[in-house]
Amino acid sequence: MGQNMTRKIIAAHLAEGEMIPGQEIALKIDQTLTQDATGTMAYLEFEAIGIPAVRTELSVSYVDHNTLQVSYENADDHRFLQSAAAKFGVKFSRMGNGICHQVHLERFGVPGKTLLGSDSHTPTSGGLGMLAIGAGGLDVATAMAGYPFYVSMPQVVNIHLYGKPAPWVTAKDIILEVLRLLTVKGGVGKVMEYTGEGVSYLSVPDRATITNMGAELGATSSIFPSDEVTARFLAAQERAGDFVALGPDPDAEYDEVLEINLSELEPLIALPHMPDNVVKIADVAGRKVDQVFIGSCTNSSYTDLMRVAAILKGKTVHPGVSLVIAPGSRQVLVSLAANGALTDLVAAGARMLECACGPCVGVGQSPCSAGVSLRTCNRNFEGRSGTVDAKIYLVSCEAAAAAALTGVITDPRDLGEPIKVEMPEKFPVDDRMIIVPPANREDVSIVRGPNIQPLPVASSLPGEIKGEVLLKVGDNITTDHIMPAGANIMALRSNIPAISMHAFERVDATFAERALAAGGGIIVGGLNYGQGSSREHAALAPLYLGIKTVLVKSFARIHMQNLVNFGLLPLTFVNDEDYDTIDPGDVLLLEDVRQGLVTNTLTVRNLTRDKAYPVKHSLSERQIEIMLAGGLLKYVKEQV
Amino acid sequence: MGQNMTRKIIAAHLAEGEMIPGQEIALKIDQTLTQDATGTMAYLEFEAIGIPAVRTELSVSYVDHNTLQVSYENADDHRFLQSAAAKFGVKFSRMGNGICHQVHLERFGVPGKTLLGSDSHTPTSGGLGMLAIGAGGLDVATAMAGYPFYVSMPQVVNIHLYGKPAPWVTAKDIILEVLRLLTVKGGVGKVMEYTGEGVSYLSVPDRATITNMGAELGATSSIFPSDEVTARFLAAQERAGDFVALGPDPDAEYDEVLEINLSELEPLIALPHMPDNVVKIADVAGRKVDQVFIGSCTNSSYTDLMRVAAILKGKTVHPGVSLVIAPGSRQVLVSLAANGALTDLVAAGARMLECACGPCVGVGQSPCSAGVSLRTCNRNFEGRSGTVDAKIYLVSCEAAAAAALTGVITDPRDLGEPIKVEMPEKFPVDDRMIIVPPANREDVSIVRGPNIQPLPVASSLPGEIKGEVLLKVGDNITTDHIMPAGANIMALRSNIPAISMHAFERVDATFAERALAAGGGIIVGGLNYGQGSSREHAALAPLYLGIKTVLVKSFARIHMQNLVNFGLLPLTFVNDEDYDTIDPGDVLLLEDVRQGLVTNTLTVRNLTRDKAYPVKHSLSERQIEIMLAGGLLKYVKEQV
Repeated sequence: MGQNMTRKIIAAHLAEGEMIPGQEIALKIDQTLTQDATGTMAYLEFEAIGIPAVRTELSVSYVDHNTLQVSYENADDHRFLQSAAAKFGVKFSRMGNGICHQVHLERFGVPGKTLLGSDSHTPTSGGLGMLAIGAGGLDVATAMAGYPFYVSMPQVVNIHLYGKPAPWVTAKDIILEVLRLLTVKGGVGKVMEYTGEGVSYLSVPDRATITNMGAELGATSSIFPSDEVTARFLAAQERAGDFVALGPDPDAEYDEVLEINLSELEPLIALPHMPDNVVKIADVAGRKVDQVFIGSCTNSSYTDLMRVAAILKGKTVHPGVSLVIAPGSRQVLVSLAANGALTDLVAAGARMLECACGPCVGVGQSPCSAGVSLRTCNRNFEGRSGTVDAKIYLVSCEAAAAAALTGVITDPRDLGEPIKVEMPEKFPVDDRMIIVPPANREDVSIVRGPNIQPLPVASSLPGEIKGEVLLKVGDNITTDHIMPAGANIMALRSNIPAISMHAFERVDATFAERALAAGGGIIVGGLNYGQGSSREHAALAPLYLGIKTVLVKSFARIHMQNLVNFGLLPLTFVNDEDYDTIDPGDVLLLEDVRQGLVTNTLTVRNLTRDKAYPVKHSLSERQIEIMLAGGLLKYVKEQV
Repeated sequence: MGQNMTRKIIAAHLAEGEMIPGQEIALKIDQTLTQDATGTMAYLEFEAIGIPAVRTELSVSYVDHNTLQVSYENADDHRFLQSAAAKFGVKFSRMGNGICHQVHLERFGVPGKTLLGSDSHTPTSGGLGMLAIGAGGLDVATAMAGYPFYVSMPQVVNIHLYGKPAPWVTAKDIILEVLRLLTVKGGVGKVMEYTGEGVSYLSVPDRATITNMGAELGATSSIFPSDEVTARFLAAQERAGDFVALGPDPDAEYDEVLEINLSELEPLIALPHMPDNVVKIADVAGRKVDQVFIGSCTNSSYTDLMRVAAILKGKTVHPGVSLVIAPGSRQVLVSLAANGALTDLVAAGARMLECACGPCVGVGQSPCSAGVSLRTCNRNFEGRSGTVDAKIYLVSCEAAAAAALTGVITDPRDLGEPIKVEMPEKFPVDDRMIIVPPANREDVSIVRGPNIQPLPVASSLPGEIKGEVLLKVGDNITTDHIMPAGANIMALRSNIPAISMHAFERVDATFAERALAAGGGIIVGGLNYGQGSSREHAALAPLYLGIKTVLVKSFARIHMQNLVNFGLLPLTFVNDEDYDTIDPGDVLLLEDVRQGLVTNTLTVRNLTRDKAYPVKHSLSERQIEIMLAGGLLKYVKEQV
């Protein structure tokens, strides 16, 4: 039977397990990337593992999230990351050099290789034919240490693109159509593999726009073939030698197939507040717009911004719109500056920001209150922009530029003849802002300002857990509830003692202080606890505050893995109705924890109410070993 | 006797008073400018005066301070300012269009006119031969309403520049030399008037660098002649018609004269933490630098950044330095983009920020902890950068660029042959981002988001003041103690109820809540109370919190004026030792306040300790009338 691309790459990197969808496999990781908001933890964790240098083919440390530097913390993080990269043999992409995914696509991605990144949009490099997966910082740290990455063998979905894209239909419209069809849960446990005639109409950055937003499907990854388009892109990046052809076998089998006719698509838009809330732009045209943001790892490439410049050239931004543009990389910015397109953008009234994630992650350019913002980025979750009541719409660069001129949501087809931008034969390659680690790494000292605080480390799992119920929450608690984001709190990502004081602050502002005063305790929750972003700080902060176990009706998968990674016992009720008989302040006791964990026969006693609840876990044998060791770090260290 | 330039302009604008140094005069104001951090209050105040449109020749509202938009507040302010400008007949310079002083110099400044701006660096336009003065927002609001500006008739100091500047000696070095000679108090009550052969070597932006930093001398203003250089600059800005020749009479008299030989100067640097802490760069060369910031209203003009680009072209920023550049205006940015200089800056590794004040006012790019930052701006006060323990040095653009390449403080003369940059014959004039008020102003509604809160208004001065001493502070309390700055608190400048909760928070975090709970009270302080920045929020917040009077040993001048403007009674002890007999919590009583104010025979009774203290004020008759009316707003309204 013919192999698809995903299975070919997995087969070539399989370290453990069988390639049966749903079963745990271990994948050899060729490359890793980190960004600064997750990277500081990843390098502290790598340091704790105790290996002198990374064992990957390539590891790159990027700075793209926390670049505003509203206080000293960001710059302390940058300094730490730069010195840690030099110490551990990691390339360091300096502040202002660009967004990790854009730069990785330009300079480092290689077809057929595996990439693990501590950012959920790591699959962007799937546009080059890589198998690129996002994960928590500790998973990336262990991959840098040479350990394989454990993941469920995915199902592979073929998204077959046929026909030529209709006028003004872009890569962004294709992925919005996929989101419309499959929803934000449609990709869970799957890799989306794009094939068909339609692929040939898409440049590498176009393909990367699509694989990037595969994250919004919940997919493990997304991937395109590596073909002549890929070869030309790599050659234009002076990396012709990195080209490897990759495609599915002609008779490749897939777990599912989805057909999309590009010639029948129309320009689309995701309405607030979910990326799968997709309709035709024509259906909502005319709504007033306060802000337009063009940028983010989804749509900030050279060709993206050249199309914007062509639309804006000689025109003026509407007086009611703040148009903000953040190029994806220094290479993009230099290209635009050299060919005059930047002059066109600025002359039209664009506010040019540093090459970074910026507004996409709510780091600056928050809209006015109740403002409408049209953005080319990938997520429009409520509040993510930094303005709680803002309404964020997701569109293509063309639709964003059109609205910037008219002041209202505008179908880009109203602009007339479609814009055609040529991919350059040669990009202005210049890696001077990517610092190569020195030969004498042993002489490098890691620089730690006051914002770089030691990792909290769990004690090994005790025989008995006793504690007060410090917090009882309901269903669907997200990692944003557990550990809020935003520029000010994100600045503390490398300072667990400080950031922990913000844990649950939007649920119960007294939580952190009470937990510290009580010397820790227990959290009780409902269904789907820990959904949303993969941030490991949602486990690290409770660990720092002394939480020993989290007892809920059910867990979201990644957060449960993060709890295990940091040695916090994730337990679920056998009988959901027991949840109702626990009150905040009750004192709970688990005895024979280590033995009960192995046999999965644990009982929680409520000492306050003299009740007992059977509880369980859903850990694999490997995860049980990690729990017994006191977390993944200790588990890996025992193996070093 | 011959007239100097300052007295010529004052004579042509004198509305009241005699031109005797130290005596109060009233000046007709031709132009006003505001920036967003002070402007929101200024337009709320103008609105409260109740006049439908400004009565100046020109008023411009700029946005340059709060541009990061970390939450909704900044964007709400921008929207309010844009709508208020349209309503009141004010030109609105949009976000990203540049720093108020740079744009005003380029597009609006006119030799021989008067300019009042709600920013202390308003004297920048003195580089064009304007008499330009910084003031509080309410003073600017009353000027917009057509009232004259009251100020002490200044002494006029002639700074006579002779000789040709030595190689690598710039305008920045000249003003640093003046600061070294005269100190940060050397200009108080004075206008610094520059003349001599040396003036001919300085471009208009060079001159503006010097008049800009006259603010650091404490000067009322600084001014250069309007000559052929000025005529060429205005012509290049397509404003030849605005040119008026202006110079001192050949036999002009001055109150003081200072001679500076430019040919003997060397590149200079201001060490932390005061702009007059000036030494030769050569004396401190070699100190490690973590950050270089090029920008601010002092040094962000076309010629400034062209010199930087020439130095950086083909070279690479040192790996230990974060080089940050913020062009002063969109015109500067477009010029650099069009001629390739921007490519040189970015290629060398510069992080390009939006055209705004940015790092100069601690809005972003705070250095790492204990970091060393070389900056081209005007102030290096401790903590102003946003990093409490950072060390800020002030230098020319050339010295900044040199350090960016070497990673250490570097004498620019080590770079070899000096850079020569020609002033363009024609700038790319484009005022599309300056919105002209519409004809149908009555149809305009002012947009107020939740961050735009009403002005607090004092009740008219009561007959009796009784209250608890809520806070007792020592000597030299600054307006930064009273009302802290920083990006997060500055975002609340138009929201007095919210920003007031931060009043005195670094002195006593409980102050604001205690004041609200007590329904107001009294502040007792030592010598020089209210020194530093002129921010009127240091009076508005106490007003909002119910403070009725401030009783101290002595006041800083501008803060005392602000207290009067907002109806808070500024009193001083007749006997300083009485300060020692008051404790926090004591209840004080003033009777017959209105009569005692007029006769200056007030007594404070300490009810808790059964003591009585004679107190006094130093208000002019006009200020007494303002106090009796309940503040300047009410006083002006009575006159409307």
